[in-house]
Amino acid sequence: MSKLIIHEVGMRDGLQMEKQVVPQETKIKWIESLIEANVDIIQLGSFVNPSKMPQMADTDDLFKIIRERYPEGRRPILSGLVLNERGLERAVAVGVEMICMGISASETHSQKNTGMSSHEAQDRIIKMAVDAKQAGNQVQVSVQSAFGCGFEGKIDEGRVLSIIDKYLENGLTKISLADTAGHAYPQQVEHLFGEIKSRCPEAELTCHFHNTYGLGMANVFASINSGVDSFEVAFGGLGGCPFTKTAAGNVSTEDMLHYFYRMGKRKDVSLEKLIALAKEVSAFFDRTLPGYIYKTGTLNY
Amino acid sequence: MSKLIIHEVGMRDGLQMEKQVVPQETKIKWIESLIEANVDIIQLGSFVNPSKMPQMADTDDLFKIIRERYPEGRRPILSGLVLNERGLERAVAVGVEMICMGISASETHSQKNTGMSSHEAQDRIIKMAVDAKQAGNQVQVSVQSAFGCGFEGKIDEGRVLSIIDKYLENGLTKISLADTAGHAYPQQVEHLFGEIKSRCPEAELTCHFHNTYGLGMANVFASINSGVDSFEVAFGGLGGCPFTKTAAGNVSTEDMLHYFYRMGKRKDVSLEKLIALAKEVSAFFDRTLPGYIYKTGTLNY
Repeated sequence: MSKLIIHEVGMRDGLQMEKQVVPQETKIKWIESLIEANVDIIQLGSFVNPSKMPQMADTDDLFKIIRERYPEGRRPILSGLVLNERGLERAVAVGVEMICMGISASETHSQKNTGMSSHEAQDRIIKMAVDAKQAGNQVQVSVQSAFGCGFEGKIDEGRVLSIIDKYLENGLTKISLADTAGHAYPQQVEHLFGEIKSRCPEAELTCHFHNTYGLGMANVFASINSGVDSFEVAFGGLGGCPFTKTAAGNVSTEDMLHYFYRMGKRKDVSLEKLIALAKEVSAFFDRTLPGYIYKTGTLNY
Repeated sequence: MSKLIIHEVGMRDGLQMEKQVVPQETKIKWIESLIEANVDIIQLGSFVNPSKMPQMADTDDLFKIIRERYPEGRRPILSGLVLNERGLERAVAVGVEMICMGISASETHSQKNTGMSSHEAQDRIIKMAVDAKQAGNQVQVSVQSAFGCGFEGKIDEGRVLSIIDKYLENGLTKISLADTAGHAYPQQVEHLFGEIKSRCPEAELTCHFHNTYGLGMANVFASINSGVDSFEVAFGGLGGCPFTKTAAGNVSTEDMLHYFYRMGKRKDVSLEKLIALAKEVSAFFDRTLPGYIYKTGTLNY
């Protein structure tokens, strides 16, 4: 079993659903908690049109501030999500250290999320990814709605694999499969990641699950079995895509870390600090979050 | 993969934590919903001292009523839990079709739950189980707190396996591992069930998980991987042992069935009826239950 990398996406995928805009000083406080907790990668935000998603309006500023305060190499890698060329320019300008971008395998989700068809998105995203990689950036590409779609239901596996093949043909081997709608189930997860591994054994695989139907953590386990070594999760189990149907939270960072602790893994990441953060975020939004551990407490043996 | 048998324990493990005693006519209505849903086994209750657990005071009556109304062979098997010889007598008297009994691997839990030490319980339970089996009854034996204990923390695997060995020596091969406190994690589940299978390949294995730390469904998946073919679950995710610490609900029947549907399995069991029941139970107790599916709805593809 490899390292089990924790990619914390709560600041992006966790917050983008929230109507209540989080003040920048609060965001910075939360990011600092994540840095202190020693997660591996923090997604600070997405480079989208601020008028369409006010919660993400200060993404550029957050990168500038955090990169200035915390020198690279002595803190988590900072990732950011881009949806188009304009977003990519902004991401490069502020020095995003891992640029994430993706193509939805669902036509309806692609249109609603990006205004592009899935095939148009494919051409543009692959070009963007290749250009960004050639310019020296670390790039992660994803297939969104890879396991099913809230609008369309079943997603043809052939369509998912055709996107994967295009990524691999273009040398894009850092690949995430995102279960935007939460339809994934463990056997499907093992099968699809297995297909990628059989095509490209050296691919670096990331998973991203939503817990809509209660299968998030089972899918994490299936991913570990499949050789996935990076896990996109959100503090408190916050989140969901605003442009999907029946969205639900991400797998909770502290719940997954608690599971890793049970395996004797990643004890270098502070569960205590992540639990404190989930409590703080719950208090900020004045509601109970989906995560388990921040409510039940943790096992210490 | 074998049949994936659904053993519904909500009427026992689900209700025993509830202070609000469910009137008998309501219990019968819920049991009838489970019969109509076509689950495989229904645990109607436990044969315990009614003064200690008023919620279970009418267990004998429930067996009489259901057995009279619904002839055997044309409805689910009716199981019941017994803790001692007096309970076993009562169970046999009312014709329980699968008698369940167990030994806690945790000293503290054993004392609190039964007033006996784990080793005393072992001697008595094995004698009871062997006698009941010889008298022609179907008997399932379990190890409670098999994966950890809320009071004691880590449970020595050697202790769990010594109980298993005693069961097997005495011809008791229908074995359940119960994660009373919810400490189990998937790799541990695979390991422990693997140990039983390696000792006795023909053992009939059952699992029983509580979702305290959010790992219930991941443990179900691990159990399927390990050749477990029977799953103790509770409608709505109700439940927990009143004599444990930080108890939480069982894995939810309808959530697990929804997962089985995703695999194309057990479509002969009605998810719709189980969801309606979870809604009814939620309304009865006037609170939100832990299950996911009865709130989000189901995927139909």
